[in-house]
Amino acid sequence: MAKVITRPAKRIFIADSASVVGRAEYEGPLGDCFDIYSDSDDTFGMKTWEKAESEMQRLALSRVLSSAGKSDSDIDALFAGDLLNQCAGSNYGLIGFDIPYFGLYGACSTAAEGLAIASLMCGSSFKRCAVVTSSHNCSAERQFRYPLEYGGQRTPNSQWTVTGAGAFLVTSDTADVDLGGRTVQIDDVLPGCVVDGGITDINNMGAAMAPAAIDTLERYFNESGRNAAEFDLIVTGDLGREGTAILRDMLKNKGHDITSNHVDCGIMIYNIDAQDMHAGGSGCGCSAVVMASHVIKNLRAGVYSDILFIGTGALMSPLKLQQGESIPGIAHLVHITSSEGF
Amino acid sequence: MAKVITRPAKRIFIADSASVVGRAEYEGPLGDCFDIYSDSDDTFGMKTWEKAESEMQRLALSRVLSSAGKSDSDIDALFAGDLLNQCAGSNYGLIGFDIPYFGLYGACSTAAEGLAIASLMCGSSFKRCAVVTSSHNCSAERQFRYPLEYGGQRTPNSQWTVTGAGAFLVTSDTADVDLGGRTVQIDDVLPGCVVDGGITDINNMGAAMAPAAIDTLERYFNESGRNAAEFDLIVTGDLGREGTAILRDMLKNKGHDITSNHVDCGIMIYNIDAQDMHAGGSGCGCSAVVMASHVIKNLRAGVYSDILFIGTGALMSPLKLQQGESIPGIAHLVHITSSEGF
Repeated sequence: MAKVITRPAKRIFIADSASVVGRAEYEGPLGDCFDIYSDSDDTFGMKTWEKAESEMQRLALSRVLSSAGKSDSDIDALFAGDLLNQCAGSNYGLIGFDIPYFGLYGACSTAAEGLAIASLMCGSSFKRCAVVTSSHNCSAERQFRYPLEYGGQRTPNSQWTVTGAGAFLVTSDTADVDLGGRTVQIDDVLPGCVVDGGITDINNMGAAMAPAAIDTLERYFNESGRNAAEFDLIVTGDLGREGTAILRDMLKNKGHDITSNHVDCGIMIYNIDAQDMHAGGSGCGCSAVVMASHVIKNLRAGVYSDILFIGTGALMSPLKLQQGESIPGIAHLVHITSSEGF
Repeated sequence: MAKVITRPAKRIFIADSASVVGRAEYEGPLGDCFDIYSDSDDTFGMKTWEKAESEMQRLALSRVLSSAGKSDSDIDALFAGDLLNQCAGSNYGLIGFDIPYFGLYGACSTAAEGLAIASLMCGSSFKRCAVVTSSHNCSAERQFRYPLEYGGQRTPNSQWTVTGAGAFLVTSDTADVDLGGRTVQIDDVLPGCVVDGGITDINNMGAAMAPAAIDTLERYFNESGRNAAEFDLIVTGDLGREGTAILRDMLKNKGHDITSNHVDCGIMIYNIDAQDMHAGGSGCGCSAVVMASHVIKNLRAGVYSDILFIGTGALMSPLKLQQGESIPGIAHLVHITSSEGF
């Protein structure tokens, strides 16, 4: 059994966050929570979808830095990633920042992967890090499945790649924390292992990711000795309807009932039926923008004070699928709490 | 100016390393240093090049674990990456290990990126981590340029993607360190920033990476107050002949003469002219296997006792190039020393 819960060496805070989304996300139920949105065609003034995605990353990081009153030199390291080949969304979007840069690849789990690494790093060598991740529906669909112009029919269990970028400021410096609301703290993390459930359907990311989420949550409950009902919220990102049903069922069979307090970023972000989003949202930007807006705001407001965020990723390679392999998944867990003062 | 030199919170050792290479690499000048090699067709018994690359990762990690007498549960985290889209080489190659997994993307700088993160992590939250990276000539060429069957003519400044995987065991536990030789320690690291030198030639990775290597080395010399001549070796991986010439020239103009003690993994790994390797080797596997074999062995033997390893990566996206953008580079520096005892 792999090692599980890891605590930062100091108290680590999420001092601030920012979210940038496309039009469909703005028109969803969380629309009012986002900081920046496209009110037209999701191009953000750029000529290609890939450039639009990079621009969202730039906007998200700029926003969180300005909101927190920080400049490039205040940030010790940047952890960033996205779904594009060679992580081009992040590499190109963040060129203009003079901040040491670590590229990550964790598919849709990248926001949680970044928060996990940043919180452990800020506990020792670094004081203050930023995490930025993104996805764009139009760049992702043409890379992984079909160009949108093709008009491919989507299956009922397929998820809609979210157009969005989220950025987080992770710090060990209490002076960074605005006491206008409750302080938001990363208590511990559980890095996930790669789990292969044997799924080979390129449309069914939820089923590919669910086994990893189950593995990670089960290990967390077992080692922490806490049960599911003790948390205000267990938020996965982003299993969609298909993966959510599998997760809840299979965890119940293992003795962990999360039905009453579990939500999924891919389900929360859209009015799924009205917006015709099939199984819900997905992508590196999905959990990033839901966490960076709605969830962090509610932690700060005291609606939640003790939550588990499980970022799930389908490590799906179209080429490996063509070669007959299945889609492995991964799920990184970040335990976040909020409290009055320090 | 970005923050620069970062020290792990404790003494951190490279306890062991392993290298797996293809036939051309075995036939090069460092052939005898590698642990495992293909004596035939570089397939490692697999039916596709991508599966062969994953198999090399599996072999490299298995070898370093068995050599160090460790099992999966002894390793707190794995940092891995490669050049394939969605980092499929690592994701699929390391599925069988029950070790928490963080996917990285730093192009050819990934070995240095992994060593940098692992050393800082082992200084606080983790005790022992592994780093694995790979590249395969046949999987990389068909993804980034042309399938080999096409027989495309290579330009004189092009580099040859190395077929190889390297693995490192990074630890804070002195009990892990075999005192059969000198102890090898990571003293400090300097994470690189993304630097765009404006190169748009998909064949000329050396020129795309050189500006990042210059930026990183200059910042290191300036902050440490040490000059180039004080180090036994300054090893870049992998600028090739083209990038090496640019690096040496431009650093000299900035007052840092590295000509006498600089080597490049891409030049060291082949008998370049006899093997017809044009500008030399490249790829996530290049610096990984040269460091994991020849360089670490010489540190352990006392041939070197104070070196700088600068892993350089061209964050090249074929799609972004088609959209008129240039190729950004990144260079992460790892300062490694060796000494008798602890």
